Amino acid sequence: MPQDIFHETFPNGLTLLAERMKHVRSAALNFLVPAGCAYDPLQHLGIASVLSDLIIRGAGQRNSREVTLALDNLGLDRDESVGSLHMRFWGATLARNLPAALEIYADILRRPHLPADQLDAVKALAFQELQSIEDEPKQKVLIELRRRHYPAPLGQDRHGNRAGIESLSADGIHTHYQKLFQPRGSILSVAGNIDWNKLRDLIARLFGDWKGDQEPSLTLGPLPSPHDHIEKETTQTQIGIAYPSVPIGHEDYYAAQGAVNVLSGGMSARLFTEVREKRGLCYAVWASYQTFKDRASVVCYAGSTNERAQETLDVTLQELKRLQEGIESEEVDRVKAGLKSSLIMQEESTSARAGTLASDWYYLGRVRSFDEIQSAIDSLTPEKITHHLRRYPPRDFTIVTLGPKPLRMSA
Amino acid sequence: MPQDIFHETFPNGLTLLAERMKHVRSAALNFLVPAGCAYDPLQHLGIASVLSDLIIRGAGQRNSREVTLALDNLGLDRDESVGSLHMRFWGATLARNLPAALEIYADILRRPHLPADQLDAVKALAFQELQSIEDEPKQKVLIELRRRHYPAPLGQDRHGNRAGIESLSADGIHTHYQKLFQPRGSILSVAGNIDWNKLRDLIARLFGDWKGDQEPSLTLGPLPSPHDHIEKETTQTQIGIAYPSVPIGHEDYYAAQGAVNVLSGGMSARLFTEVREKRGLCYAVWASYQTFKDRASVVCYAGSTNERAQETLDVTLQELKRLQEGIESEEVDRVKAGLKSSLIMQEESTSARAGTLASDWYYLGRVRSFDEIQSAIDSLTPEKITHHLRRYPPRDFTIVTLGPKPLRMSA
Repeated sequence: MPQDIFHETFPNGLTLLAERMKHVRSAALNFLVPAGCAYDPLQHLGIASVLSDLIIRGAGQRNSREVTLALDNLGLDRDESVGSLHMRFWGATLARNLPAALEIYADILRRPHLPADQLDAVKALAFQELQSIEDEPKQKVLIELRRRHYPAPLGQDRHGNRAGIESLSADGIHTHYQKLFQPRGSILSVAGNIDWNKLRDLIARLFGDWKGDQEPSLTLGPLPSPHDHIEKETTQTQIGIAYPSVPIGHEDYYAAQGAVNVLSGGMSARLFTEVREKRGLCYAVWASYQTFKDRASVVCYAGSTNERAQETLDVTLQELKRLQEGIESEEVDRVKAGLKSSLIMQEESTSARAGTLASDWYYLGRVRSFDEIQSAIDSLTPEKITHHLRRYPPRDFTIVTLGPKPLRMSA
Repeated sequence: MPQDIFHETFPNGLTLLAERMKHVRSAALNFLVPAGCAYDPLQHLGIASVLSDLIIRGAGQRNSREVTLALDNLGLDRDESVGSLHMRFWGATLARNLPAALEIYADILRRPHLPADQLDAVKALAFQELQSIEDEPKQKVLIELRRRHYPAPLGQDRHGNRAGIESLSADGIHTHYQKLFQPRGSILSVAGNIDWNKLRDLIARLFGDWKGDQEPSLTLGPLPSPHDHIEKETTQTQIGIAYPSVPIGHEDYYAAQGAVNVLSGGMSARLFTEVREKRGLCYAVWASYQTFKDRASVVCYAGSTNERAQETLDVTLQELKRLQEGIESEEVDRVKAGLKSSLIMQEESTSARAGTLASDWYYLGRVRSFDEIQSAIDSLTPEKITHHLRRYPPRDFTIVTLGPKPLRMSA
């Protein structure tokens, strides 16, 4: 399938990526700014989250209400979110409304008011969100797993903590904004029914004179303790397990994806079959792949009754360790069918394409073509996946549980 | 935009709907069978959920493992779910794999094994899912709201209860299956890159000789008590509010949608602005529209700290009651932009289209065209929405809260 993919890196360092999808009427935009919560200073944990809310509350010539209304009037479905390394601004609407939306985002990213008089309301919301995690044990166990699996500050959670949020001042937020919001390292991707020349000219006009080129850096701390239990009077015990894998860009990347899908891609996958279908141990069990540039992990989750939690943990770990014993060719056929089908689904979604353009660029410095991905999937074999698993066997597990009682961790 | 929409109702009562989307490579299928949890007998609450799991575990010539593997090998992303009135089988994959998937679904719907030896595992999973709600206060408050807002059995929850699940036998499930799985009242919809004539012939071959035409009926009980508090030691208080609206098909339907979107469509909508942005009362607050054929509701949710829950409830109710005082034209412009943008997004998704074909047919007995919906949206005015709200003002609230302490309910 021919793809119309375009790229320009402006002199100030901002990267613009676009894919023209001529049979659609919508367009999606995706802005990554290197201002994720890993850059939250220890005494101000939560600052990225607070900034991501405050930054929308007035920008350029518009006050808070006017910004929101202007975006809503363009029919923009949108979301601002804070990841580990990036703050992400996503939106989707009719292609013809995209230029007007980008004009507003230029104000938001470059000329936000960060109004001091709204800071109390924003901090109150950040407290609320932080507190609500205590009522969501599934979410909590995955947050605590991440915190123990990655060296600080990579494992930091965007919700921050009470002291961090309380400490925030309008001045401090403005300084944080100025340090991190800059063209170098920022990526804007767009997919949909767009005209590349007009888009590039628009972005040159809106962002060409944006200044700043000190990409932030992180100093990693030591690895935290790998096993932990969080005591809580819940009716179910939550289990989170993580172990190292290879990052995107590594020669084993597709084999690693294949291995995760042997575990958890589709309903005939191993975890679903062994833990859920055969033994009825838990309703939800899955594994997924997570990557940074220089490291990656497989993260597994299971939630079970308190009585059957130990067996759930044991069976899940056993399945992880059993992977390196070998993979069946019927499993690889299934995995390939699933990966190819997802690839086609992504092709048809402007939001999915905009997201992939930006993440490919960030991780690889280029955008992979469908043909490249498709032939990498086609070339998967049981031998390749097994070879990968013997080089990088599931081990060095980080395990976090949450529930009334700790479990035995033999891993 | 020209649409290729096709329809056939077979002599046995099965309805087939299809939309040809020639620029995509995928296809989605959506099967509605009138076997939702409202048909669960009181002594067997949970039977629909258990059946929806068991029905996939072997069908036609394939055993449990073979069914799952065959579907996974087609790259099918799929889900079986239980609604109030329908059991839903959804799947999406490459268009070229659709006929093979439909062959397997014909076995699942018409020739399931419902294996007795897997019933214990399936019941264990149903218990687990039932129990997990106790750890999910947001989900719990909405389930309990529904139970108190609609007359039984419309408000029944698919999770059932412990005694109901325990009571289930393989024979009882088989009888329930035989009673409810039949062509009359079942709707199959497909959207994607399909050939209508081939599809119709395939469905005629797979389902033409399916028998059974006793559509199940429901006898409604009295309305339950409208206010309730569920005591639970949570860090946040959950609030659910429901009130009557007009069903799809009613002359006021689009005005009712407009009113809900004035409350909750986009970030400049009233609930978000008044409850969240200005006062910082709660992180999550929304309203959504829910319809049956003969009745409909607006359901609102808010979750707040225990300290600010009373104010959250009061402000939310005040916003609901204030609706009938009138709507601004800038609000209607925003709502129209949002509704039109969602319409375009739906057009581009095979899954969204398959779902809409089936629900339009169920509620209206026909499929609405884009042009019809678009001109209904275009014709919305502040006067129309206000007129609707004066005829059907938000009142007769059902309110359910969950948290450490009850709230004052002045509604």
